[in-house]
Amino acid sequence: MELFYAYEADGRVCRLDAEESGHCVRVLRHRAGDEIHLIDGVGTLFRCRLVDDSPKGAEAEVLEAFPGWNAHPYRLTVACCPTKNNERFEWFVEKATEVGVDRIVPVIGERSERKVYKTDRAARIALSATKQSLKARIPEIVEPLSVKDFIGQTDPADGSLKLIAYCFEGETKRISIQEALQVFGGRDITILIGPEGDFSPEEARLAVEHGYVPVHLGASRLRTETAAVLAAAAVYLAY
Amino acid sequence: MELFYAYEADGRVCRLDAEESGHCVRVLRHRAGDEIHLIDGVGTLFRCRLVDDSPKGAEAEVLEAFPGWNAHPYRLTVACCPTKNNERFEWFVEKATEVGVDRIVPVIGERSERKVYKTDRAARIALSATKQSLKARIPEIVEPLSVKDFIGQTDPADGSLKLIAYCFEGETKRISIQEALQVFGGRDITILIGPEGDFSPEEARLAVEHGYVPVHLGASRLRTETAAVLAAAAVYLAY
Repeated sequence: MELFYAYEADGRVCRLDAEESGHCVRVLRHRAGDEIHLIDGVGTLFRCRLVDDSPKGAEAEVLEAFPGWNAHPYRLTVACCPTKNNERFEWFVEKATEVGVDRIVPVIGERSERKVYKTDRAARIALSATKQSLKARIPEIVEPLSVKDFIGQTDPADGSLKLIAYCFEGETKRISIQEALQVFGGRDITILIGPEGDFSPEEARLAVEHGYVPVHLGASRLRTETAAVLAAAAVYLAY
Repeated sequence: MELFYAYEADGRVCRLDAEESGHCVRVLRHRAGDEIHLIDGVGTLFRCRLVDDSPKGAEAEVLEAFPGWNAHPYRLTVACCPTKNNERFEWFVEKATEVGVDRIVPVIGERSERKVYKTDRAARIALSATKQSLKARIPEIVEPLSVKDFIGQTDPADGSLKLIAYCFEGETKRISIQEALQVFGGRDITILIGPEGDFSPEEARLAVEHGYVPVHLGASRLRTETAAVLAAAAVYLAY
């Protein structure tokens, strides 16, 4: 099954942008009358008939709509510090999208080597991985903000599960991410993953003050992007 | 903690090859008398004193040995079909090594697009990821063989858990990988992951005849390399 992305979908007609139209019409040689499948990127799959096979702006008529198609039974935010090497963070975006994530927040820590992050490439990768893994909802890639600002936006009493992967040397009262997920009965989860140089002690303390539970990801020392994907995998496997 | 790899370690002296020596002496500027940590790649960490700081062939005297250092409590083989894009398979090698794997077998399926695979780059990546993730044992990268030959070498009665991720359309009697791991009490696990075009029905049938349990990896449609890493992650998280 091949999915296309409709930048506009009003429930009756789906419109493809130039890139998707080119792929649909030029590469895959679909013609008016063909049945194709489109996603609106916010959760709905449409079975459609192609009515305009222009390779610059194709249009399709909706035959059937499937809201919530292939949705996962949780709502996961992964806030992760962009890695020094951009490709590693992009790899995390692709893999987390395949496994299932709802919101990716590039957060800049006090010890982050990378202080600037542009989200445009990540957004394209997330779209591609969404179609490839047969999902109808593209994860939101939030504009970067500081770790402290992100934590500051947290409502400690919103009933969601908030986890921070951090060493907390000395005062190690951490549980495994699996235990944390097992105890939690809800569906809203946020996981905070630090940079190569880890969170600063203040960032970690601030997180705990805002209701973040310190967790560990097992005995291996993992790279930032591996930790972020493993955390997403742990949620995926637990639900 | 920085680890170096000793290509020769007799318990008394550790010898570094030209690459490791250059990294140790030229890049990190270690000098004779410095304390360094080396791994032998087969499970032991050595605390050593550098006695010869030649950048072409350094040597260190063993002060203390830690056999089984940071070993994981299972023995995992992942047999996975190399992807068309080599980088994707290499990424799996890196991530599976970080998480913890003992043996990686590049298997060539009847529907594999890539029929030839050279293991030299993967071996270097596995070494680097082993050191980076603080392990003393480098996963073995086996020379490629066909899926059928690999399955043919399986002893159905050796007490290990053998899993195959395959759709088995129609006759779907699959359990999740987590369920399979939960029921199993042992430590020897083999997981077989197919190519982009999946296993052929004969390969899948042969696997089941040889004791492989069909498992699924959840609701997402995952790329080959993502499936392989998720499978390794499921084992890592279960132990």
